[in-house]
Amino acid sequence: MITEASLSRLSLNQRTTASWSLPEAIKGCVDAGLGAIGIWREQLAEVGLDEARRLVDHSGLRVSSLCRGGFFTTADPAEAAAAEARNREAIEEAAALNAATLVLVPGGLPPGDRDLPRARDRAARAIERLVPYAHELGVNLGIEPMNPIYAADRGVISTLAQALDIAERFEPEDVGVVVDTFHLWWEPGIAEQAQRAGPRIVSYQICDWITPLPPDTLLARGMMGDGHIDFAAFTRSVAKAGYRGDIEVEIFNADLWAAPPAEVVEVMAGRYLELVQPYLESAAP
Amino acid sequence: MITEASLSRLSLNQRTTASWSLPEAIKGCVDAGLGAIGIWREQLAEVGLDEARRLVDHSGLRVSSLCRGGFFTTADPAEAAAAEARNREAIEEAAALNAATLVLVPGGLPPGDRDLPRARDRAARAIERLVPYAHELGVNLGIEPMNPIYAADRGVISTLAQALDIAERFEPEDVGVVVDTFHLWWEPGIAEQAQRAGPRIVSYQICDWITPLPPDTLLARGMMGDGHIDFAAFTRSVAKAGYRGDIEVEIFNADLWAAPPAEVVEVMAGRYLELVQPYLESAAP
Repeated sequence: MITEASLSRLSLNQRTTASWSLPEAIKGCVDAGLGAIGIWREQLAEVGLDEARRLVDHSGLRVSSLCRGGFFTTADPAEAAAAEARNREAIEEAAALNAATLVLVPGGLPPGDRDLPRARDRAARAIERLVPYAHELGVNLGIEPMNPIYAADRGVISTLAQALDIAERFEPEDVGVVVDTFHLWWEPGIAEQAQRAGPRIVSYQICDWITPLPPDTLLARGMMGDGHIDFAAFTRSVAKAGYRGDIEVEIFNADLWAAPPAEVVEVMAGRYLELVQPYLESAAP
Repeated sequence: MITEASLSRLSLNQRTTASWSLPEAIKGCVDAGLGAIGIWREQLAEVGLDEARRLVDHSGLRVSSLCRGGFFTTADPAEAAAAEARNREAIEEAAALNAATLVLVPGGLPPGDRDLPRARDRAARAIERLVPYAHELGVNLGIEPMNPIYAADRGVISTLAQALDIAERFEPEDVGVVVDTFHLWWEPGIAEQAQRAGPRIVSYQICDWITPLPPDTLLARGMMGDGHIDFAAFTRSVAKAGYRGDIEVEIFNADLWAAPPAEVVEVMAGRYLELVQPYLESAAP
């Protein structure tokens, strides 16, 4: 039986139900008995920050993440300044919504640029510039390492180890890491890296790695249980590292987007209870 | 001007010109002035080992690799025995052709199996069982770490660091590593890992990472210069590590396969001379 208590740590990332507006997604989470929501800035902008905050407060939901800041690998000073301004605005929104983290997607290689180490370094320095403002507003910046499939065009930080190398330059309350099964399931030594991360894990996002990979790799994610990821082992590692936050389901998938969102939430809740939730509580750190 | 000397270390992997039979590919390499060829077992079987050896000897080409052994992640004892037999046969072929290495593609997760660490361990133990026979026949087994995009269905060993962790259990003349730009371009610390590998690098394969990724991810590779990889930096690392072998162009790509093979070889030779060859000689180890 699905009880509210058993879903209390489950969060719906808005990209899983892309057709829902923010008010619809909030209502969907409440109706399904979830404890939290991961909010996207695009849908947030449609209703405005004040109204969003009112809706969230009224719903009783936690905001497990605000998606997303980042995209700051540019080598162009004017573009870098614009990226910084966008990220400062995102920090303000994350603070207003009391989000557990602002997810930072690093961005890919600039057009024509093949120097990956320098792009990575620019991402690290962009984070460094944001830290004081994030600290002032009490927002944790969550670096999201991304599957190497996106290294060229979306996220130049490719492993949890690499994300931690950057995060550890800062205080844990300022800079954490986003642990997403899709991005990291293959990483050699991932359990040890999760342990290393400890309190720096500020978001645990889940979805599956499916094969054959759908033609549009941006939409290549699958529902938990439909692919190759060992959610029991991965979740135990995250729990053992001490993570006590929400578990956010983030699935970019055209088939899911074509289905009625409430049904997607129902399936996702069932898979969570079967494949993830049992492994959250058993492993004390 | 393209001289024979400047192409002396360039090798055509047969998958780049998939429509050519082995005799056609050998002739194509000789006509283009290349120094070596990477042979696939499927095309080898079409002409038979004796005839293949005769053709190779007559051509004067080196065999930069035999592709491929491996696919030994199964947990089923009978399948494991069959895989071992196939690999022993491949070792015999590599010895007969005097190939610089037998490329080992580890294989993916068995159907329904989500235990990636154990699949990786089975691959390592399968290599261990092959080493005595490879040693006896003087064949170097080249472990090929593969882009994580293939971790589920093709190659469970995902980084050069991880491949070296396995290779270093054996003597360098028995077990080496295959360094392929497509698989490893994104790896954090790749230059340091290449240095660590040193004489264990038994094959340097090149092609580009292109975006958007073609719909069939198995055919997602691009011609050098068409994508995001910094061939100058990567090649310098491999040269600095002491690699003095052939540079093998291996491109799985439907568009290239539809083009006249001799034209593909011409383009590939031009890109090699522009993007790779200048960086092979300058960096003494």
